[in-house]
Amino acid sequence: MVVVGSGIMGQRLSDGNDAVALLANSLATGCGLVVLIWIFGPVSGAHFNPVVTLVAVLRRDLPGRAALTYVPAQILGAVVGVWATHLMFGLSVWQVSAHVRTGGDQLFAEAVATFGLLATILGTTRFRPETTPVAVGVYITAAYWFTASTAFANPAVTLARSLTDTFAGIAPGGVPAFILAQTSGALIALGMIRWLLDARKIS
Amino acid sequence: MVVVGSGIMGQRLSDGNDAVALLANSLATGCGLVVLIWIFGPVSGAHFNPVVTLVAVLRRDLPGRAALTYVPAQILGAVVGVWATHLMFGLSVWQVSAHVRTGGDQLFAEAVATFGLLATILGTTRFRPETTPVAVGVYITAAYWFTASTAFANPAVTLARSLTDTFAGIAPGGVPAFILAQTSGALIALGMIRWLLDARKIS
Amino acid sequence: MVVVGSGIMGQRLSDGNDAVALLANSLATGCGLVVLIWIFGPVSGAHFNPVVTLVAVLRRDLPGRAALTYVPAQILGAVVGVWATHLMFGLSVWQVSAHVRTGGDQLFAEAVATFGLLATILGTTRFRPETTPVAVGVYITAAYWFTASTAFANPAVTLARSLTDTFAGIAPGGVPAFILAQTSGALIALGMIRWLLDARKIS
Amino acid sequence: MVVVGSGIMGQRLSDGNDAVALLANSLATGCGLVVLIWIFGPVSGAHFNPVVTLVAVLRRDLPGRAALTYVPAQILGAVVGVWATHLMFGLSVWQVSAHVRTGGDQLFAEAVATFGLLATILGTTRFRPETTPVAVGVYITAAYWFTASTAFANPAVTLARSLTDTFAGIAPGGVPAFILAQTSGALIALGMIRWLLDARKIS
Repeated sequence: MVVVGSGIMGQRLSDGNDAVALLANSLATGCGLVVLIWIFGPVSGAHFNPVVTLVAVLRRDLPGRAALTYVPAQILGAVVGVWATHLMFGLSVWQVSAHVRTGGDQLFAEAVATFGLLATILGTTRFRPETTPVAVGVYITAAYWFTASTAFANPAVTLARSLTDTFAGIAPGGVPAFILAQTSGALIALGMIRWLLDARKIS
Repeated sequence: MVVVGSGIMGQRLSDGNDAVALLANSLATGCGLVVLIWIFGPVSGAHFNPVVTLVAVLRRDLPGRAALTYVPAQILGAVVGVWATHLMFGLSVWQVSAHVRTGGDQLFAEAVATFGLLATILGTTRFRPETTPVAVGVYITAAYWFTASTAFANPAVTLARSLTDTFAGIAPGGVPAFILAQTSGALIALGMIRWLLDARKIS
Repeated sequence: MVVVGSGIMGQRLSDGNDAVALLANSLATGCGLVVLIWIFGPVSGAHFNPVVTLVAVLRRDLPGRAALTYVPAQILGAVVGVWATHLMFGLSVWQVSAHVRTGGDQLFAEAVATFGLLATILGTTRFRPETTPVAVGVYITAAYWFTASTAFANPAVTLARSLTDTFAGIAPGGVPAFILAQTSGALIALGMIRWLLDARKIS
Repeated sequence: MVVVGSGIMGQRLSDGNDAVALLANSLATGCGLVVLIWIFGPVSGAHFNPVVTLVAVLRRDLPGRAALTYVPAQILGAVVGVWATHLMFGLSVWQVSAHVRTGGDQLFAEAVATFGLLATILGTTRFRPETTPVAVGVYITAAYWFTASTAFANPAVTLARSLTDTFAGIAPGGVPAFILAQTSGALIALGMIRWLLDARKIS
């Protein structure tokens, strides 16, 4: 809802200046994420993201059975959020994006973006867990700008964004490759952070 | 004062680029709210908002008698703030907004915005009360962008904003429906957060 | 340096869109203030502002003798900062502003801005002193937008800003009235916060 | 990667409004730095910057031998980051900047920017070390705006930015003088902070 809604509002008001729209989009998304993680962190761990759940299962921080309920809930929540946003902005609920996002550079950007997200989560929870909620929001605000794909970095959000033909949309044809790139980035982060941090003590 | 003043300044300087005006408006409002809650939280709970007070009474966190003084003070403060802003910007003190904000999508947006505000307050105070002041400010900055109504989310502020014919105004005819939508959103948040959080322990 | 430098940079790059320039100006100033207070707070109290020093003397938090060295240092620091900024941007060091800022609305705005600044400082140090540095920065970012004068709120900075003919300047003729308005706002804040907070215990 | 990537994205989207591009650039860089310091601070001290390492060696906080591995790693990391950014944005990997940045005012700005960065690091770690990561990010966001050079403030980043012909680039001819200016600013900060803070106790 935050990603798509702030994208619509930004584009409507900015008269074609996409930099201002993306500024609003990136700040609103970062702000929204921090609040959601503060609220839901103590309840469920505040995953919201299938690759975060996947990595948690691989690290044995979460039982595999939980993932089977987490992932569908993540997708359902993201899709309902997109539909509610369409209602708020007086648009048709059912839409399919025509915004083509493909190519090796976009996929590399998604891998980098998701690598960075997982490095942020695993890196801060290891030594400074109290900073993780803010770190994730602040990371995403930055990643909107430094990755060429504006950092989807989340398969559930990617799926849901294929269902909106607005600023933040992605045409369905590009979704599978995005999800594959995101998963690769996450797994590489898992490996690198384990090698870098898990054997260390706080300095 | 922060909402209306930053709206005027934003619109005056932005040469019709409403996205830049709303960016200033949303950042200033979020910043202002954090400071006000830090200052007045230890004094009165920093409600500023009739539906926050209503929910506090329903949760028995505040005696009903206190609400009878809180709500008029909230409305009075908001109206005096608007008038002082008009003075600062050299405008006539008495104004009535001509900015029509109606329609089912706007009302749904107000319900969503106020639901989110109460979820932020109740959700963070339950497990991480030290984050509530920042969470509320950061939530409102985001909600300006992802709700189609720019998140009034406060009946006292809505009333006061009907008394300014500037960027942040709302024509009086739309006020009752906004307040009804805000109250509905708040009550739904009260129910959902109670179901979700109140029976749990910190994980 | 932060106020004047970010004003010059903002105006140079924004092609006459003053809203974007003020956005940069207000964010840079808020960010700079937080860092300066974190660094110098433990050394000197991080006043930087003659009316903050005045109020501290009146509250007997600072000996009057210290104020006699603080205030000249504040003015000297602000002026040297402006001159260094001119050097950095390749401008003549000696300038006098031609930007007229007068009128009752501007003075009322300065009184409000300085009232708010002192309320922020006194209000947060009473119960939540760890938040004061961030609260001051965040308050100033907001106050740039909601006060019609863009919140100078500091006599030393006002004097120094009369010595730059750039975005943030003020023509010397307006300086005495600004300082008077700032002092009035500060003294009203002193009285009101004393009445409101000083007799209370943390709730 | 954050500096160059957000510069490219900002410039692509902003239709020649460089103020909006620099706003995105400065916010993304500040956000990115905070996260990187939170993650890598407990591992290596999160230097990323040869002059920070130099000052740490001079203060005997870091053995000189460590610096011999730190500095090459900093340069290598910065260059790889620039190249990866080019890949993400579909540009040729190998580039040399044609953006001339020279002149006494730019060098003075770099000395000021690096002085401020070191003052932020040494000043906050002395009494409030928990604020250092955020202070560094927030300082850099401000320094992009108040220094005429947009605050490179890092020899490794300066070298790497000579290898990108995009918004954030610097033509190689200007690099040695920038590095000299940065080193001077850092050494002056070392001397001043030692004189100001190191003999004091927390007030």
